[in-house]
Amino acid sequence: MAARSRLTPERESELYEAVLDLLREAGYDGLTMDAVASRTHSSKATLYRQWGSKAELVAKALRSNKPVSLAEIDTGSLRGDFLTMVERSDTCQMEKDSALMRGLAHAVHENPDLHQALRELLIEPEMTGLDELLRRAVDRGEVRADNPALKLVPHMLIGAVVTRPLIDDRPVDQEFLATYLDAVVFPALGV
Amino acid sequence: MAARSRLTPERESELYEAVLDLLREAGYDGLTMDAVASRTHSSKATLYRQWGSKAELVAKALRSNKPVSLAEIDTGSLRGDFLTMVERSDTCQMEKDSALMRGLAHAVHENPDLHQALRELLIEPEMTGLDELLRRAVDRGEVRADNPALKLVPHMLIGAVVTRPLIDDRPVDQEFLATYLDAVVFPALGV
Repeated sequence: MAARSRLTPERESELYEAVLDLLREAGYDGLTMDAVASRTHSSKATLYRQWGSKAELVAKALRSNKPVSLAEIDTGSLRGDFLTMVERSDTCQMEKDSALMRGLAHAVHENPDLHQALRELLIEPEMTGLDELLRRAVDRGEVRADNPALKLVPHMLIGAVVTRPLIDDRPVDQEFLATYLDAVVFPALGV
Repeated sequence: MAARSRLTPERESELYEAVLDLLREAGYDGLTMDAVASRTHSSKATLYRQWGSKAELVAKALRSNKPVSLAEIDTGSLRGDFLTMVERSDTCQMEKDSALMRGLAHAVHENPDLHQALRELLIEPEMTGLDELLRRAVDRGEVRADNPALKLVPHMLIGAVVTRPLIDDRPVDQEFLATYLDAVVFPALGV
């Protein structure tokens, strides 16, 4: 086995946090490995050895950032599950996530590697958690198994987070998400 | 009055189309006045004299691009109005609009001038058209005046367009929008 130096978990977290800050500030295209190296006082050689590419580093950094795990939420009702999800989200974190999505929106479309890494690391596990939560609601008889909105819950939730600042010029917060659940998501699911 | 040369409408359209193409390709940050000048065979001095700033040029170009005017649609029912809106949207144009939104998502947040120009030229007139269409539905008794989803229709519609490629890796098309109307928008409005 090669005697390759490993980063400590603390050092790794620090690096990921710096990558995310740079992404929010400059967007994906504006993020350079030079800037990451400079802000984290590391060498570009180390960054490439550890992560292989900018796309991979960004995807790993995003994954490290995920604040609310849906898989842990199971209150016994769909309303309860969704409201818990909103309560556990922190406003500042949501605005930061929203800034990340804005910074990445163009890049993921232009860069299939990044899109793929993002899907595997961030979107698909989240979808699985959401599917699980919705499947339980169907099993309990709260939502009809053939309700066409079941497949569109991710579009509703992510759509709300992305459009709030664009349309209303205000950050996403728990109050907005709770209103959106009551006005849009629950009626669509027939809850 | 100053003897300032005016562009012909054809030449103006040509310029706007080039600006939009560059935005889709490179995003707002990647779009330079040099690139616009080079692609349209004009001088940077002309561009600045005519539009003042990159933000203004981009906002004007976006406005010129708007394909479906909601204000003209009045079929006598909310379902009819929305379905007409979807039928009149062309798939290729929607994918192009979606690419524009991705290219601008980061920029509008970082650049208050651009956000303001976009709001005045693109978002607010569209909101007014949509408000009008929804107000008629309320007047006809199709939607309750106090339905909280009335204020969230833009979030639902724009959210659907923005999230479709991100989540499903497929372009927005008329079939998806019609499904989304039936599964999400109409149930939320109680139609």
